[in-house]
Amino acid sequence: MLKPGDTIGILGGGQLARMMALAAAPLGLKCHIFAPEGDNPAFDVAAAHTVAGYEDAAALKAFAAAVSVVTYEFENVPATTADILSAQVPVLPAPRALAITQDRWTEKSFIRDLGLAVPDFVAVSSVEELEAALVRLGRPSVLKTRRLGYDGKGQAIIRDDVTAQAAWDAIGRAPAILEAFVPFEREVSVVAARSLSRDVVAYDVCENRHAHHILAETVLPAAISAKTEQAAKDAARQIAEALDYVGVFAVEFFVAGFGDQEALSVNEIAPRVHNSGHWTLGGAETSQFEQHIRAVAGWPLGSVKRLGRISMENLIGDDVMRWPELLAEPGLVVEIYGKREARPGRKMGHFTRVIR
Amino acid sequence: MLKPGDTIGILGGGQLARMMALAAAPLGLKCHIFAPEGDNPAFDVAAAHTVAGYEDAAALKAFAAAVSVVTYEFENVPATTADILSAQVPVLPAPRALAITQDRWTEKSFIRDLGLAVPDFVAVSSVEELEAALVRLGRPSVLKTRRLGYDGKGQAIIRDDVTAQAAWDAIGRAPAILEAFVPFEREVSVVAARSLSRDVVAYDVCENRHAHHILAETVLPAAISAKTEQAAKDAARQIAEALDYVGVFAVEFFVAGFGDQEALSVNEIAPRVHNSGHWTLGGAETSQFEQHIRAVAGWPLGSVKRLGRISMENLIGDDVMRWPELLAEPGLVVEIYGKREARPGRKMGHFTRVIR
Repeated sequence: MLKPGDTIGILGGGQLARMMALAAAPLGLKCHIFAPEGDNPAFDVAAAHTVAGYEDAAALKAFAAAVSVVTYEFENVPATTADILSAQVPVLPAPRALAITQDRWTEKSFIRDLGLAVPDFVAVSSVEELEAALVRLGRPSVLKTRRLGYDGKGQAIIRDDVTAQAAWDAIGRAPAILEAFVPFEREVSVVAARSLSRDVVAYDVCENRHAHHILAETVLPAAISAKTEQAAKDAARQIAEALDYVGVFAVEFFVAGFGDQEALSVNEIAPRVHNSGHWTLGGAETSQFEQHIRAVAGWPLGSVKRLGRISMENLIGDDVMRWPELLAEPGLVVEIYGKREARPGRKMGHFTRVIR
Repeated sequence: MLKPGDTIGILGGGQLARMMALAAAPLGLKCHIFAPEGDNPAFDVAAAHTVAGYEDAAALKAFAAAVSVVTYEFENVPATTADILSAQVPVLPAPRALAITQDRWTEKSFIRDLGLAVPDFVAVSSVEELEAALVRLGRPSVLKTRRLGYDGKGQAIIRDDVTAQAAWDAIGRAPAILEAFVPFEREVSVVAARSLSRDVVAYDVCENRHAHHILAETVLPAAISAKTEQAAKDAARQIAEALDYVGVFAVEFFVAGFGDQEALSVNEIAPRVHNSGHWTLGGAETSQFEQHIRAVAGWPLGSVKRLGRISMENLIGDDVMRWPELLAEPGLVVEIYGKREARPGRKMGHFTRVIR
């Protein structure tokens, strides 16, 4: 268990690390950020930082020696990085969550083995296997690389007008899965946390709207039944317990049907604070960032009470130029990430309306 | 007017600077802290810092060149420091507020000249003048140094059992004022802000309880009439306008009598964020720290809406050891300042209960 004055190490220097560091400070904890060369806005709010590659063993060892626990802002932490750090200092969430969620086949198998619904899927490692999988799952279906996909990258929908070869080329001929296409009505997610003492809390389910494969807007409450809301939270708890997870995580679901026919299937697990939880900053009694810090510090979790009806919107690329108008709106919770350059598709900030 | 990515310079590295820096980051602003050698917890959350004395002209010039505006966490910024900085970069609040509030005689004269009630006072620069003043104001009365007093330092109550000489010695024979003793029922304060575009907002009036001359607890709403509440806010606005003030400030009042007899007199003005405004962090839609940053950045002020009934308590010295119990209380807003050593009388943190 950490105490005020101790230091949390964070892998990654982007907005998620930055918001974690901003949440750690009021709890009296310092942060040390480890990230490669680049635009690392988390450096501006942390007590210390190391600029080095995730494969730099000497730098990792020095970093581990300087902190009391290591956590991370992204799920693609290399296994060797986690191993080097784990040998010296606790890494939370534990590397097993990384190993499972870094590979879509492993992740979906893990979820299915828990008895939770997932869209049907088949592993594919050649165009011949893809042809066979298409016969089994039909068209449309979705081809996804097993590793390193996010925000729609490494994915291709295979409709009637696409050949298996074209899809296989489109994702770079990497080991993949073919997934049944879910004609889902909407996407929801649960952000939840589990503590070292095994308490689990889940924030209310939020509904997500994407644009160009990037989260654009999150609203709460989600337009789902109380039964579905509870099922989503129960699934999150089951996943956390099966992983012996410590920290904040998100589970994304597809929702098909309405009313009694409403059915969830798990899309993916993110073993970290998540964009669909940004509304908790100002919209819940404890933000997901503070919650994560509490969990990895070995502290009790905070209240997940929601403070009103919520709408959170991302500021993508030039959207951030809206800042004068947003800052002038009374009561709006505005967060600007401090990135140097507003490239298209880049998450530059977000804002949350809380209707009390 | 600043824009996201710009840097605010802050004189002082303590908890107020730290909470300002933590409020600046979500707005996309960087902070550069300037403070002498010492325990400077603000360094841990700022993009840059300079360790130098407030009289170090070269260091001040380099600091001014690195920032877009300078503000401060304490009112005793030396006039020469403010002059050096002002020659290069805007200093907000403007140094005139410092000049007036650094000297109790100037401050009280300024307030009286505005037509606001202040306890009767007389300037005193020798034991003979003190004897004469005691004849005029009677006993008990309060001797206070004109400069550098805070948290009860540089003050002596002169009752029947104290000689003028003993009191004069007790405050170090420094230029002083003798002030009529106010048998006040309670102390309240208003935290308010004025923007570059001359808007003024005032948070609700809070009631303050002190222990050993240090603020112990702040509660809202204050047990005063609506008329008195409005009078306090009006006084704050009048002071801000007379100073052409930009930023957050606090006005402390004594309240005597009840009901129709309720009467305010101004105790002092603090030209900075103030301990009695800490409740706004989690207890109002915009914290006083964010409000101050908005004001000195030239941005619109935020909503001062209070989110419930409030109780804020300071953690003084070893009180901070209560952190495990406080972190376990659902919904409590806890702020630990990250200071290295919990000396007696030292403000180490605070916490706020918000009853929604």
